[in-house]
Amino acid sequence: MTRGFYIGRFQPYHNGHQTVLERIAGHVDEIIIGVGSAQLSHELGNPFTAGERVLMITRSLASLGRPFYVIPIEDIQRNALWVSHVKSMTPPFDCVFSSNPLVMRLFAESGHTVHCPDMYERQTHSGTAIRTRMLSDEPWEHLVPRAVVEVIREIDGVERLRRIAQSD
Amino acid sequence: MTRGFYIGRFQPYHNGHQTVLERIAGHVDEIIIGVGSAQLSHELGNPFTAGERVLMITRSLASLGRPFYVIPIEDIQRNALWVSHVKSMTPPFDCVFSSNPLVMRLFAESGHTVHCPDMYERQTHSGTAIRTRMLSDEPWEHLVPRAVVEVIREIDGVERLRRIAQSD
Amino acid sequence: MTRGFYIGRFQPYHNGHQTVLERIAGHVDEIIIGVGSAQLSHELGNPFTAGERVLMITRSLASLGRPFYVIPIEDIQRNALWVSHVKSMTPPFDCVFSSNPLVMRLFAESGHTVHCPDMYERQTHSGTAIRTRMLSDEPWEHLVPRAVVEVIREIDGVERLRRIAQSD
Amino acid sequence: MTRGFYIGRFQPYHNGHQTVLERIAGHVDEIIIGVGSAQLSHELGNPFTAGERVLMITRSLASLGRPFYVIPIEDIQRNALWVSHVKSMTPPFDCVFSSNPLVMRLFAESGHTVHCPDMYERQTHSGTAIRTRMLSDEPWEHLVPRAVVEVIREIDGVERLRRIAQSD
Amino acid sequence: MTRGFYIGRFQPYHNGHQTVLERIAGHVDEIIIGVGSAQLSHELGNPFTAGERVLMITRSLASLGRPFYVIPIEDIQRNALWVSHVKSMTPPFDCVFSSNPLVMRLFAESGHTVHCPDMYERQTHSGTAIRTRMLSDEPWEHLVPRAVVEVIREIDGVERLRRIAQSD
Amino acid sequence: MTRGFYIGRFQPYHNGHQTVLERIAGHVDEIIIGVGSAQLSHELGNPFTAGERVLMITRSLASLGRPFYVIPIEDIQRNALWVSHVKSMTPPFDCVFSSNPLVMRLFAESGHTVHCPDMYERQTHSGTAIRTRMLSDEPWEHLVPRAVVEVIREIDGVERLRRIAQSD
Repeated sequence: MTRGFYIGRFQPYHNGHQTVLERIAGHVDEIIIGVGSAQLSHELGNPFTAGERVLMITRSLASLGRPFYVIPIEDIQRNALWVSHVKSMTPPFDCVFSSNPLVMRLFAESGHTVHCPDMYERQTHSGTAIRTRMLSDEPWEHLVPRAVVEVIREIDGVERLRRIAQSD
Repeated sequence: MTRGFYIGRFQPYHNGHQTVLERIAGHVDEIIIGVGSAQLSHELGNPFTAGERVLMITRSLASLGRPFYVIPIEDIQRNALWVSHVKSMTPPFDCVFSSNPLVMRLFAESGHTVHCPDMYERQTHSGTAIRTRMLSDEPWEHLVPRAVVEVIREIDGVERLRRIAQSD
Repeated sequence: MTRGFYIGRFQPYHNGHQTVLERIAGHVDEIIIGVGSAQLSHELGNPFTAGERVLMITRSLASLGRPFYVIPIEDIQRNALWVSHVKSMTPPFDCVFSSNPLVMRLFAESGHTVHCPDMYERQTHSGTAIRTRMLSDEPWEHLVPRAVVEVIREIDGVERLRRIAQSD
Repeated sequence: MTRGFYIGRFQPYHNGHQTVLERIAGHVDEIIIGVGSAQLSHELGNPFTAGERVLMITRSLASLGRPFYVIPIEDIQRNALWVSHVKSMTPPFDCVFSSNPLVMRLFAESGHTVHCPDMYERQTHSGTAIRTRMLSDEPWEHLVPRAVVEVIREIDGVERLRRIAQSD
Repeated sequence: MTRGFYIGRFQPYHNGHQTVLERIAGHVDEIIIGVGSAQLSHELGNPFTAGERVLMITRSLASLGRPFYVIPIEDIQRNALWVSHVKSMTPPFDCVFSSNPLVMRLFAESGHTVHCPDMYERQTHSGTAIRTRMLSDEPWEHLVPRAVVEVIREIDGVERLRRIAQSD
Repeated sequence: MTRGFYIGRFQPYHNGHQTVLERIAGHVDEIIIGVGSAQLSHELGNPFTAGERVLMITRSLASLGRPFYVIPIEDIQRNALWVSHVKSMTPPFDCVFSSNPLVMRLFAESGHTVHCPDMYERQTHSGTAIRTRMLSDEPWEHLVPRAVVEVIREIDGVERLRRIAQSD
């Protein structure tokens, strides 16, 4: 049995993440999804709480066909300890999937196998692009799974983002 | 749809927890299981990492028949902030199940509905009792779900506990 | 009896704050003044310690005619916990006065009544404007209460700011 | 002008504290009262929040006849930094009043003048004694200022203490 | 070239530590000495600051005949991250010398070679025994290197310990 | 006997630091070298761990002819406590050598003597300039002591820096 680890901030979770995870599901038996910067919320770049992001991800992956774990990972501000931190919070894993150079380097230095998945239409499918659309009242719903639209509606997420954006 | 929250340290997860969660499953649509003191491990009273505990719980509940979320919750050492901390890390929930007086009080003071489930054979089915058996080489396997025995074996958990117990 | 909460960083406390607090005093029986980012000092944007700011505020409000509490509030870097943090450090309050969108949103999400007071001559009466004047040796004393001039003189505050400003 | 510093945990504030502070008021022009272990609450030994303790103290000292400052002081778990921490949170002071040997030593090592006030009927007038009475339903109200009885009643403090005491 | 790691709290550094380090010097080219619980001081069990302990050790080892590094290591309260924490603060090392079961286990689980040196007259040569002697005015100077006696005298260490011991 | 304190981040340690330290060695009997921001590593501006920096410095100063102490100093994000923090981690010192205005101010406010050493060819001999050269594959080895070249080679430091630089 092989278990793979994938991490993101998921502000919000979108179709790019979904596509990558569906591909990873073809290579491992179980997937651990780390929700990074878990302690942050109500910020322009991090509007959603870890719990809201856990909900978005879990609902969107309901038909993934693989067991998966969604684990909030708080920042620790010490890169040299970050891999140990992640490993203490997650079930053991055999390989890491990431396209973030720092994440790749940290796991590589501590002896892990790291795969770099192709990003899916990175320009449009990014958290930043989606949050910008929310702020300027452009359509964003087609860029995220149906379940994410529902969660953001339930928590009044777009309004929260707009309010925060008024802060000086 | 109703979602319930249940928290424990699960050092280790045992049949008492399993019985309570199966009962809770009869009252709510989804269950959030908080893994408390997530940052602790390799201690006499807290031998297992949060990730190892997540694995024990997830495997044991495979046939629960209800969606569930297993979320590590780090201690924050400030009781007045603890409920907000829990809520930031979990999907929204409607009610809390706990028999811990402090947990009950903190959630009650912040306006949550708290139910106190009957504990299942509390004397024998406690983390302390099970860890004591592990240390004194008495049988403990019948007190935990099959999946927990497997996880503890994979991580060489009893040996870890014994080594730690030699510390002065 | 009603008690209102007002928060700022007060780097330094100035006539704009004073004017707003005098207005608030007309609407509540007691006022709690939170001194935000209490842990910061000796920075270009935060030159004064929490204690120095407590002194400025307390002396300036000596003739307010209302009981008031001046409470240092350390940052906790977790927006979702911030309201609980504030409430644990202060006497209970009935309403919040703030014109900061994030503060307004956080209190609103946790069910508090928030009033947005008119700012007093915001352009000239801001901490940033006053610190800039201090650095460029322009007059600033007319923008703050008399007591603040005295406190800053006693602690040699302008010299401190200038020294720090030389850091690269 | 002289300013004195006095610190306690005030769980709760009682007649012993009141008597000591009234005596100190005879020796200094202004008093700073530090509310120690400000981050703790809802514990058997620390049932009240910092804000609740600030309220108890401020109301009880209404007729002290001296300006005073009531400042929550969070623990920092590093004795060698504690004096600097206190000083950063408080207006400057000239002398310290304390009968706690560690507090006395830390201030003395950093060059401060420390006075040791006589304790007032220490056996009966201690936080521990009062909390024990609350738990065993014995009268405690005569041991604290009238204002403290009111605050504890408003926050349902005795009930909180009893609930917490049931925790194992 | 081989480098060995040895850790202790050194409250204070004594002849037992000295004897063990002299033995280790026979097996490696360079020695790293970690000063554990570096953030603690002015406590009954931890009277001396990290800097004072660094001074005791460095002076006592002046004629060791091997290069050595004395590194303060702050606690991080998370056993699963402790080895990474130590490694980030120290030059790379090849083996660990420790007789503490938890330290041995943590290094072993992360793949390090751990040697358990014989303790030197453990009963009398322990920090606890020496501190007890200091408190009860019994001779302790023969149990520590000459340089340690000097350092403790310079910082008035015995008096500090006695003062702290009066705290309730 | 006089002891001097000098602090830097040493990312990496270079000939400018070496020159300044050799000059300081002419004025004091012993030197304490604080390795600042010790907790940071694997960042574009802070690529090396504290332990790696300790190694660079210790080897480079082998022939300094003065006893010296190399002490990692973690940031504490509270300027008002920073001097106490430094002093708790280091042997006692008589004077401070620094050209950083904030460091100079903080030590001066707490009553220390501060000397400002002439910087050695500051433009070329800066951590920033050297890291930029590493990234753009220009020669940098002549700007640092021989021992630093060796350490960076052993830990594959240039490759680490380049990988990290790819992070978005």
